[in-house]
Amino acid sequence: MSTLPFPIERLDTPAILIDSELLDRNIREMRSLADRHGIGLRPHVKSHKSIVLANRQIAAGAIGIAVAKLGEAEIMAEGGIADIQIANQVVGRIKVERMISLAKKISISCAVDSIDNLRELSELFGAHGMVANVLIEIDTGLHRSGLGRWENIFELAKAASASPHVALLGLMTHAGHAYAAQDPAARQRIGIDEGNQLVAFAERLRHEGIPVHVLSAGSTPTAEFVAATPGLTELRVGNYLFNDAIQVALGVAEWERCALSVLTTVISVHPDRIVIDAGSKVFSSDAGAHGSSLLSGYGKVVGLSATVTRLSEEHGVIMGEFAHLTKVGDRLRVIPNHACPVMNLAESAWLVESGSVIGKLEIDARAKTA
Amino acid sequence: MSTLPFPIERLDTPAILIDSELLDRNIREMRSLADRHGIGLRPHVKSHKSIVLANRQIAAGAIGIAVAKLGEAEIMAEGGIADIQIANQVVGRIKVERMISLAKKISISCAVDSIDNLRELSELFGAHGMVANVLIEIDTGLHRSGLGRWENIFELAKAASASPHVALLGLMTHAGHAYAAQDPAARQRIGIDEGNQLVAFAERLRHEGIPVHVLSAGSTPTAEFVAATPGLTELRVGNYLFNDAIQVALGVAEWERCALSVLTTVISVHPDRIVIDAGSKVFSSDAGAHGSSLLSGYGKVVGLSATVTRLSEEHGVIMGEFAHLTKVGDRLRVIPNHACPVMNLAESAWLVESGSVIGKLEIDARAKTA
Repeated sequence: MSTLPFPIERLDTPAILIDSELLDRNIREMRSLADRHGIGLRPHVKSHKSIVLANRQIAAGAIGIAVAKLGEAEIMAEGGIADIQIANQVVGRIKVERMISLAKKISISCAVDSIDNLRELSELFGAHGMVANVLIEIDTGLHRSGLGRWENIFELAKAASASPHVALLGLMTHAGHAYAAQDPAARQRIGIDEGNQLVAFAERLRHEGIPVHVLSAGSTPTAEFVAATPGLTELRVGNYLFNDAIQVALGVAEWERCALSVLTTVISVHPDRIVIDAGSKVFSSDAGAHGSSLLSGYGKVVGLSATVTRLSEEHGVIMGEFAHLTKVGDRLRVIPNHACPVMNLAESAWLVESGSVIGKLEIDARAKTA
Repeated sequence: MSTLPFPIERLDTPAILIDSELLDRNIREMRSLADRHGIGLRPHVKSHKSIVLANRQIAAGAIGIAVAKLGEAEIMAEGGIADIQIANQVVGRIKVERMISLAKKISISCAVDSIDNLRELSELFGAHGMVANVLIEIDTGLHRSGLGRWENIFELAKAASASPHVALLGLMTHAGHAYAAQDPAARQRIGIDEGNQLVAFAERLRHEGIPVHVLSAGSTPTAEFVAATPGLTELRVGNYLFNDAIQVALGVAEWERCALSVLTTVISVHPDRIVIDAGSKVFSSDAGAHGSSLLSGYGKVVGLSATVTRLSEEHGVIMGEFAHLTKVGDRLRVIPNHACPVMNLAESAWLVESGSVIGKLEIDARAKTA
């Protein structure tokens, strides 16, 4: 590849482009939101999986990062990140031993929502004379993992407090169902409720004599409401540094704030459609997220007032009479529905600024299955 | 990792398991189908992206392979495959130069469906004193790339024949719309029509004095009908070596013939649902393919008579009252809707036989974006 910087035209396609200024602006403004409310910012790096971007988020004031799985945590720890929350359960001896290896080097915690898993963490960490840092996962309406009933939360918190090899840091939740909100008012209700539920459970636990310090919540669509909830200590957000068509459909971001796009080439032109060289192995086949039905198609085509109508694995079909506007070999930029899987599907992405490629980003933790 | 073989229980999850005997049987039987009808078998390696599996298909009698893009062709050529058809357009100077590099080492061809692209191939191959091997892509009903009208096909074939730096090998098509067939009779009609259209266009071209030799068609759902069409020379199939829930829904395969599954761990148990540690970053979010609506959910859970109801990026939620049947830490095997993106999303897969892991498969061409 050419020496940096070089014109975008020299890139082969499909290529993931990340607008460097927009990226920095998105990172900066989320930090400002957190600062205004005095809440710590813990970016979820599953959205980018890049050591460089994680360190950029830390440099911009993040207190640490969140990851979705151990494979990401291991890569990020190698990349110099010293405070990692696994916003997920760590289940099974193989995984817990991997977490113990990390806990010898960095500050690491995980979510827990069952006595069985708590016992496993306690026993295995205990066998090493170590302490597992855990946050009880609260189900605030997504109905995925997490506990929603007080009796269960109280029982698990008591068990955690009673174990000498477990440190109950606090509570965490993710109100992913905000992605299915039909309008900003519904999204606001979910965001306010997400924070309030977490704070209410924390207060009941404190009342029962169980101290909880960390209250970690968030998602990009609920960030503004979570940040403003008194009592929460951590705002956890992932997608915000890119934004995407889903965030625009939700009213969270504008097209002009979408930092990630896919550069594609038109490979076939017909009276009723054109075909680009990027399909579901580039965009993923994510239509919405968590039941969202706000979007049609698979990404906004910049400059054509069209969306990608359907995807095969290596083709994107854009229905419409564009044959007089485009020819085979033309390049089109597409803002994907969901930026996070796009990063996971690629090997690398390109930082761009004013028509030039200024950097190559390795997607270090891509394809870490476990 | 342990020395091979070792018990499956020692694998971390999620893990991609490939039943070695079923794999070999699927590979062998497709070869038998092709042999019975005297048609060449050209497996499409986009389904597995593994050099080892491509060579296994060649060893089992394939005449060469098909790939979906240059990135796959480059990896497979490095892996010793000497006859590759890029079943897609190769558009733009960067890509054509990459194809030329390959054409200096192996036998390689690509699809073409426009005069513009044909001219580009001709000029760039010509500048190297070389000849581009092309197949005209015919649209037999998928309405993606390809030409469906005789005038356009004839015009492109004449242009190809007139160029000294292009060799028109023949015609190719992919009737992917068979994936949307609602019943086996509809699938049969599509498969028969796919082959017959290709043969009919070839005969008209020959009648016009334009020789075409290679007639390449196929998909796993239409394989039996394409193989039986007199006049076709190549059967192109990808998924058949694995099969998946989509093939079962179409009536193409039975569950007992699905060679690929995902080993997962239950991480959260609730009265109305359980949660496994594999989501859309393992299974992809492919519900069906090409508009299929035959399937609900995202994969069949082996042994639970359940499907994965919904996916987050790293969670699979299985709705149902399974709390008395499963506990946190249990392992569940899932047959995915669509096996091809599962391979693309992972770094490696495991060959298994009677409860033991007997080999590790690198997914060499995964995440090759361009």
